Amino acid sequence: MSKIRVIMDAHGGDKAPLEALRGARQAVDELDVVVTLCGNEPSLRELCAKESISTDGIVFVHTESIIPVEAQPTAIMKEYKDCSMAVGLRLLTEDKGDAFVTAGSTGAAVVGATMIVGRIKGIKRPAIATVIPTTGGGCYMLMDGGANAECRPEMLVQFGVMGSAYMQRLIGVDNPRVGLVNIGAEETKGNELQVQAYRQLAESPLNFAGNIEARGLPLGECDVAVTDGFTGNIILKLTEGMGKMLMAELKGMLLAGTRTKIAAGLLKGALGDFRRQLDYTEYGGAPLMGIARPVIKAHGSSNAKAFKNAVRQAKIMCEERIIEQIRLTVSQM
Amino acid sequence: MSKIRVIMDAHGGDKAPLEALRGARQAVDELDVVVTLCGNEPSLRELCAKESISTDGIVFVHTESIIPVEAQPTAIMKEYKDCSMAVGLRLLTEDKGDAFVTAGSTGAAVVGATMIVGRIKGIKRPAIATVIPTTGGGCYMLMDGGANAECRPEMLVQFGVMGSAYMQRLIGVDNPRVGLVNIGAEETKGNELQVQAYRQLAESPLNFAGNIEARGLPLGECDVAVTDGFTGNIILKLTEGMGKMLMAELKGMLLAGTRTKIAAGLLKGALGDFRRQLDYTEYGGAPLMGIARPVIKAHGSSNAKAFKNAVRQAKIMCEERIIEQIRLTVSQM
Repeated sequence: MSKIRVIMDAHGGDKAPLEALRGARQAVDELDVVVTLCGNEPSLRELCAKESISTDGIVFVHTESIIPVEAQPTAIMKEYKDCSMAVGLRLLTEDKGDAFVTAGSTGAAVVGATMIVGRIKGIKRPAIATVIPTTGGGCYMLMDGGANAECRPEMLVQFGVMGSAYMQRLIGVDNPRVGLVNIGAEETKGNELQVQAYRQLAESPLNFAGNIEARGLPLGECDVAVTDGFTGNIILKLTEGMGKMLMAELKGMLLAGTRTKIAAGLLKGALGDFRRQLDYTEYGGAPLMGIARPVIKAHGSSNAKAFKNAVRQAKIMCEERIIEQIRLTVSQM
Repeated sequence: MSKIRVIMDAHGGDKAPLEALRGARQAVDELDVVVTLCGNEPSLRELCAKESISTDGIVFVHTESIIPVEAQPTAIMKEYKDCSMAVGLRLLTEDKGDAFVTAGSTGAAVVGATMIVGRIKGIKRPAIATVIPTTGGGCYMLMDGGANAECRPEMLVQFGVMGSAYMQRLIGVDNPRVGLVNIGAEETKGNELQVQAYRQLAESPLNFAGNIEARGLPLGECDVAVTDGFTGNIILKLTEGMGKMLMAELKGMLLAGTRTKIAAGLLKGALGDFRRQLDYTEYGGAPLMGIARPVIKAHGSSNAKAFKNAVRQAKIMCEERIIEQIRLTVSQM
């Protein structure tokens, strides 16, 4: 079997291009993939030389422009139509790669992937799908993390279909439990969206676990949590903020006295593992589920390791044929 | 000055009536208040005798029925119109007390307080207002925590007014920063509700801090966070679930090895403080802001200490004349 080919946007993310280059290097060395980097080739090559990053096995595709993170998402189809992200997405449609990874603007990635690559037939809207850690080393997939601030009930059912395929094939969860994020367990709870979505989910072939209150999410009460992109974005970012807050408070507690400082010394390695375990950004990126080919949105603050993990995720999505699985399920519904 | 008189629902909450009785006892002993307990007087007196809880200084008002937590909220006006919660609220309107505390059904408390006690003139809807801890020992007030799943923009402005009065008078925050919970910083972000609310908040006399992303909430980026009750309930419960998850993970880490177990021993007292600091249920209860007299909804799992803290909160709300303050601000707008 030939190697999986991953296209990367060299300029997306706060720490790009340096960490993107380092991540590409690590991916080529460790993951047995071919990487194509879209970006300003002369300046990228210069940076590689300066930082002693070998370019062996990395293909460069030159682009002049970069879409700024504050640009309107639709600008990727207009004034920034030749930016590194747009060029990468076009290479994907031209079959110059099997998957695409970017840490750039989420909005631009959603618009660009939808307009340039297109959706899976039958899927109404793509969703940002993020895997979030739970107690006991588990995880759940949250959909939608913010691609669609407003949703219709049938979109939530499709999120369930896509999330189930992912959790089953990539994470190895048998018959994933799909929960509807809501403000109470009863089926009459929530707004019109939740009431309608509850009915449609109950009638779908999914393993519907009913309404899930937000308190149950980090406790692992479902494998796929479906919600509109507004609520999903709140969940995603509050999870991130709470993790940061708790690590800061823990640190404050450990540095407060002599006994606690001794304890901190004993915990050194374990604390690092703990922090990493909480940090969903280390899991890789968020696939834009519903797009006709694998597109991964890495976190805006991705470092080399996060870029590499996003490439790994892209590779597994290709190997496990997630998109074919979704296409099949949707065509049968 | 005569003592503040607090009416308590003896039967609301998972641990009622025993913890409610103990909480009432502690409140009378420590807070210099008069407590009136609504509930089944013979059985409450029997329980006090059995558990050696003195009833000195506690007034009992006998009620036959109790509203179950799974009842429709509106049942408090119909088949359960003589339950302990309804009777307590009526005593409040009859000036038989200055404030009311219940750990019973949130929905019933909102309906009962609105219908029996009524709203402050000019306030469209009451909101559940919860104080949530942030980094560095701070806190913010979240409104609405779930009384109104759907909101109009002007309701969010009123939440800001009420939350500001509370944070200023009870927590001592000068000129509280009011943040609009949203999925991005720009004023065009979010759904129609957020876009309209942004405009109205910017034009209000409040100290409007703009949109706040959920990640900034636990980091203390605002003092009052306004949002619809659906989103607010998600935030409230995810905060609770994350706290639980992190304590469980921390415990797992501390018990994993010999060195970490030694560290755990050194941290014993500090860890307890840490857990309590994260636990917003220890702060007391959530005032139903917008109701014409102080009504506090204590957490459903309240123990004696939480009941006592809810009584303390009720007492301070009376002393600081929060409701008069809100009435004044609303009348001037």
